[in-house]
Amino acid sequence: MGEVAPGDDLAEHIWKAMEASGVTPEQGDLLVVAHKVVSKAEGRVVNMAEVQAGPEAVRLAEETSHTPQLTQLILDESREVYPYHDRGILMSRHRLGWTCANAAIDHSNAPQGQAILLPLDPDESARRLRAALEERTGVSMPVLISDTHGRPLREGIIGIAVGCCGLEAVKNYVGRTDRFGQRLNVSREAVADELCSAASLCMGQADESVPAVLIRGYAYTPAETGTAPLKRKPERELFHPACDKREGGEQL
Amino acid sequence: MGEVAPGDDLAEHIWKAMEASGVTPEQGDLLVVAHKVVSKAEGRVVNMAEVQAGPEAVRLAEETSHTPQLTQLILDESREVYPYHDRGILMSRHRLGWTCANAAIDHSNAPQGQAILLPLDPDESARRLRAALEERTGVSMPVLISDTHGRPLREGIIGIAVGCCGLEAVKNYVGRTDRFGQRLNVSREAVADELCSAASLCMGQADESVPAVLIRGYAYTPAETGTAPLKRKPERELFHPACDKREGGEQL
Repeated sequence: MGEVAPGDDLAEHIWKAMEASGVTPEQGDLLVVAHKVVSKAEGRVVNMAEVQAGPEAVRLAEETSHTPQLTQLILDESREVYPYHDRGILMSRHRLGWTCANAAIDHSNAPQGQAILLPLDPDESARRLRAALEERTGVSMPVLISDTHGRPLREGIIGIAVGCCGLEAVKNYVGRTDRFGQRLNVSREAVADELCSAASLCMGQADESVPAVLIRGYAYTPAETGTAPLKRKPERELFHPACDKREGGEQL
Repeated sequence: MGEVAPGDDLAEHIWKAMEASGVTPEQGDLLVVAHKVVSKAEGRVVNMAEVQAGPEAVRLAEETSHTPQLTQLILDESREVYPYHDRGILMSRHRLGWTCANAAIDHSNAPQGQAILLPLDPDESARRLRAALEERTGVSMPVLISDTHGRPLREGIIGIAVGCCGLEAVKNYVGRTDRFGQRLNVSREAVADELCSAASLCMGQADESVPAVLIRGYAYTPAETGTAPLKRKPERELFHPACDKREGGEQL
């Protein structure tokens, strides 16, 4: 796919790329789109030189290796920032509810001196994209908007969903039975994240220029709850003692 | 695939299932296998009634809804257990290095009264399976052994790798360039986990009876480092203040 510019019709870009690749969407297909092209089309691109850093950003920037401008952007995109950490990365809770490094602000695959923010409302972006693609293809496809995030307790980034429409993001197995007829009590699978991870394997992280992946053959469950089911409330967090570096567990 | 019993030749089960499905492995394919069938074949199945719970297990069981027997198994499988949490789940650092709920001990798809543990050395199990399948198929396929784990900060379990042979588990993009020729500085992608997540979408979590998935068309990088690159050292943990429920970040 070619470069996407602010104000571009992303559905048209994707539709053209599908035609060029000989892909014809069918009922049951779903589409994973990298947030970066959604953000570019929606103009969520910031010229770093134009950012005015306030005193809080200047103070926090001194504790990290970030510029005051990037720090200001992180503050603007976050509900909460966590205490400064020794590797110079600002962890924050993004205004959308995700906890991630540097508020998911991205410099790779952005023109020099520019930064890419997450879409304002990625679930809504997914809905708009689905509608615009349905006009062209005649097929109403669920759309996932993906990003790659780091994670606690494991190395390596993976594809996750930051936007979703048309499918159940978390599949509930509670009440179903296993091979032995036993009732499953807790299994809830984050299929939206798994689908984005699968797509990420096809997208790559460098200059591959594959920002959209069509997935065929996955029997999704239709739903319109967006990404809300993926957002853990802090009071449901189970891992917190395991993440704490100051206080170890009980050595065995 | 049929039920796997302790002592069974798992490669033979998988080979037969491939033949029955008309799947012929080709060079470049890789195989994801659910740990559950590996553990069953290796006899890592415990009759809960035979477990002798010690005093530590009895004490911890009082604080959770677990039986002393299950608590003993969790202690036996862990390096470290974390302080008891209000939802009755014991979080621990597994002897293999993973942090997960209840030491990844599984009751679903196990016969009544039995529990399934992770393989003793899943990387070694993967190597043995690769060799045994090569004898039958003539193709040396990388093997991933998968489990589904919960994660901090997001809802829903996803497929992850607990065993790996023949491919680079974490793909290093550092030094590669993006579309604008800028050098990537930090991107390391946990492709082993993404591949297991993709396979998990085909396996399901209930009575689907699909414990092995052949992946074709993914250009993996050959390597023999197993799952070690996926294991984060506690001193590299970035998310810990974000996981802490007791101490919030700075509200914006």
